[in-house]
Amino acid sequence: MQKPLLALVALSLAVPASLTAAPPPSTVGDHAERVAAEDGLAWDFLEGLTTEVGPRMAGTEAEARGRAWSMQWLRTNGFVNVVEEPYDMRTWVRGTETAVVLAPFQQPMHITALGGTASTGENGIEAEVVFFPTYAVLEAAAPDSLKGKIAFISHDMRPTQDGSGYGFAGPARWTGASLAASKGAIATVIRSIGTESHRTPHTGGTTFAEGVKPTPAGALSNPDADNLERIFARANGQPVTMRLVLTPRDLGMTKSGNVTGEIVGRDPSLPPVLLACHLDSWDLGTGAVDDGAGCAIIAAAAKQAAAFGQPLRTIRVLFAGAEEVGLFGSSAYADAHRNEPFMVGLESDFGADRIWRIDSNFTESDADLYKQLAAAVARLGVAPSKQVAHGGADLNVVRAQKGALVDLQQDGTRYFDLHHTPDDTLDKVDPVQLRQNVAVWAATVGVLANHSNPVELGQ
Amino acid sequence: MQKPLLALVALSLAVPASLTAAPPPSTVGDHAERVAAEDGLAWDFLEGLTTEVGPRMAGTEAEARGRAWSMQWLRTNGFVNVVEEPYDMRTWVRGTETAVVLAPFQQPMHITALGGTASTGENGIEAEVVFFPTYAVLEAAAPDSLKGKIAFISHDMRPTQDGSGYGFAGPARWTGASLAASKGAIATVIRSIGTESHRTPHTGGTTFAEGVKPTPAGALSNPDADNLERIFARANGQPVTMRLVLTPRDLGMTKSGNVTGEIVGRDPSLPPVLLACHLDSWDLGTGAVDDGAGCAIIAAAAKQAAAFGQPLRTIRVLFAGAEEVGLFGSSAYADAHRNEPFMVGLESDFGADRIWRIDSNFTESDADLYKQLAAAVARLGVAPSKQVAHGGADLNVVRAQKGALVDLQQDGTRYFDLHHTPDDTLDKVDPVQLRQNVAVWAATVGVLANHSNPVELGQ
Repeated sequence: MQKPLLALVALSLAVPASLTAAPPPSTVGDHAERVAAEDGLAWDFLEGLTTEVGPRMAGTEAEARGRAWSMQWLRTNGFVNVVEEPYDMRTWVRGTETAVVLAPFQQPMHITALGGTASTGENGIEAEVVFFPTYAVLEAAAPDSLKGKIAFISHDMRPTQDGSGYGFAGPARWTGASLAASKGAIATVIRSIGTESHRTPHTGGTTFAEGVKPTPAGALSNPDADNLERIFARANGQPVTMRLVLTPRDLGMTKSGNVTGEIVGRDPSLPPVLLACHLDSWDLGTGAVDDGAGCAIIAAAAKQAAAFGQPLRTIRVLFAGAEEVGLFGSSAYADAHRNEPFMVGLESDFGADRIWRIDSNFTESDADLYKQLAAAVARLGVAPSKQVAHGGADLNVVRAQKGALVDLQQDGTRYFDLHHTPDDTLDKVDPVQLRQNVAVWAATVGVLANHSNPVELGQ
Repeated sequence: MQKPLLALVALSLAVPASLTAAPPPSTVGDHAERVAAEDGLAWDFLEGLTTEVGPRMAGTEAEARGRAWSMQWLRTNGFVNVVEEPYDMRTWVRGTETAVVLAPFQQPMHITALGGTASTGENGIEAEVVFFPTYAVLEAAAPDSLKGKIAFISHDMRPTQDGSGYGFAGPARWTGASLAASKGAIATVIRSIGTESHRTPHTGGTTFAEGVKPTPAGALSNPDADNLERIFARANGQPVTMRLVLTPRDLGMTKSGNVTGEIVGRDPSLPPVLLACHLDSWDLGTGAVDDGAGCAIIAAAAKQAAAFGQPLRTIRVLFAGAEEVGLFGSSAYADAHRNEPFMVGLESDFGADRIWRIDSNFTESDADLYKQLAAAVARLGVAPSKQVAHGGADLNVVRAQKGALVDLQQDGTRYFDLHHTPDDTLDKVDPVQLRQNVAVWAATVGVLANHSNPVELGQ
């Protein structure tokens, strides 16, 4: 217990005597424990957003309703300078989606289109399917070998606490359709990039390389991908054919926007602490875990970090728009605020399960500050680390400034059971773990917002 | 261990000396253990049926493909007298299904039509929704109080090992729409009669009482029902309105059928042992748990009960058709075979999880036989009981004869997570528990098929 105590003493020395309306820094740990017992704000936000708005597809009127709802919630809960910053974006929306295996055995399959893909037309397409058990096998396929065919990439994903399974399996979704199209495929179906076994396919964006014309592409649910693999195994070399109808549409340019709100600090001349999440969601679920929970956590934590006294620095929350479909909100915010200094950026966008590790990009260069942070969250079960924080997708503005970043790492074991599926709904959020998140965030933000010096980043 | 040994001695006395080609009865227990280690037949059936046929909606060509596939499998695996017994039935099929809450908060919901319900027409209906937390609250509603409204029955179901939760919550599906219609409702939505939290609504049949005109009716998934309850809680008394599009169709009279096959006994003049399951499934899943597994279990058990020598009595498997939509196959079989004596009937129609109890309707009247059965399955973890067996839905023929019944009770804790949903797929079947089922069935059928005397039913 000695190191944490020393760290708290260091923190108390760092706060200028003139700004002593803040809570005594040595109580930051206790404070976090207390707010952990009291929290109800994050749940109120998350229940409200998912019940009164629901899915918030980027660029649609549903996302706009999400912004209006959130701005009202922020104002009702004491945030100030609540503003919307609009931007224009190209908007893709889902249409009809069906898949049927026609031969050698006939069966319907559950499929959902990947974001940014082309339409098959209302009449659909029928073609032979070529099976690729992994992304690497598709990479090895000869040029033009998929001419007129549908590629089936069944790259399997397993749960990992740190989310690294997404890096292993993700390419099948991110670039698999483009790769198959470059070899002549007229469409691609992938095994869902997800870790559960329900008939709830995982959507998500896919990107076509320069010069590759977008094709239709969709994800089968894991049980359907299993079944399609078995169909190949039992086909004894007979061709497997599929009929696909996927009719997404490009709505052209529509409005989207970012929402920000503030808890103003005692010294507004100091660069603020920036807390980010994204407000848009895929259309299939209600965006509870991805990323309503993130916005709920940062908003509740900002409030609670200030619950026992006005912080030294301003705390700004950024509810970014249009993250899922290409970081349009993050880019717009970076463009608009690149020259406005931020002390540090943090993002919550990995569900609401327990935080288990704290990373930063100043762990060695500003060891005192990092130790204060680590001490403040240690009693909530959060371990220090030497991993370098990179910040979430909506912190482009801080990365553009080469600024300070803290990553509060959440347990991702369950995350890819839910991410981008119809099952991303409120009942999947564990209120006990949500509360731990808010407590860890409140403790972290409490230390940062009462830290008078700039963060030492070294070099 | 004394009672089981005595029971096995009793069994050996009961087998006539002239028919000693059967395995020595004292090895029945070991036999079950050995087949438990060897089984692969049940999985082969179940994987084949769900992969090569998939959903098998009663009265459709998919169910007919299921019959053809099963008959070929039975013949390939040494069953004889493999026959199809066709009958005509009225056939209902699903159409479009969407539900959107319109006010006070707009949200799409996941819904599926209940079997036998009416269509809203392609243009759908829009109406105010009235919330009933339980079936009893709907029962208490005044006559005509639902005129022009949509009833929402949110009766909650919890998992139970013995399936009794279905009895508690089932009426909301079985007769809720009829009850609401009798009070003026133009449509009914219910919380799924199911125990999991996925966006996979549970279908199932519903019945309209004499004189009540069928209305549209559907089940919301549990997360959607939760959300709709929250919408009511946050509506502050404003009307909640919904737009429903459900377009099922009545195909009129179509063909369905039962399939039977036999392992012929050494004395075909003795009444056979009848093992039943149903081959049709709801259309949403691939009918793995309900009831592909049941057919897999009885077929594999019949084979394995005869694996060490021809049984005394013939073992007949009945793969009934059209169980889900009104027991058409069971009724047709009872009508056709009412006068053909059966020794005893058993059915598997509750998934593939572990068997934990053996019930019969001769536990006291033919205590010797019951004790032999209980002894044969005891080492597989199956407990005896005093509960009276009633047989499954496809054993109408045995009930019509007031015949002997044995119920091998399966653990139903997980069953209603899957039953009647898109998630009823092969990956949900635990091969270890499936193997225990086959072993228990093989041991039970081994005793019954080698029992020369009729079952004493008393009275």
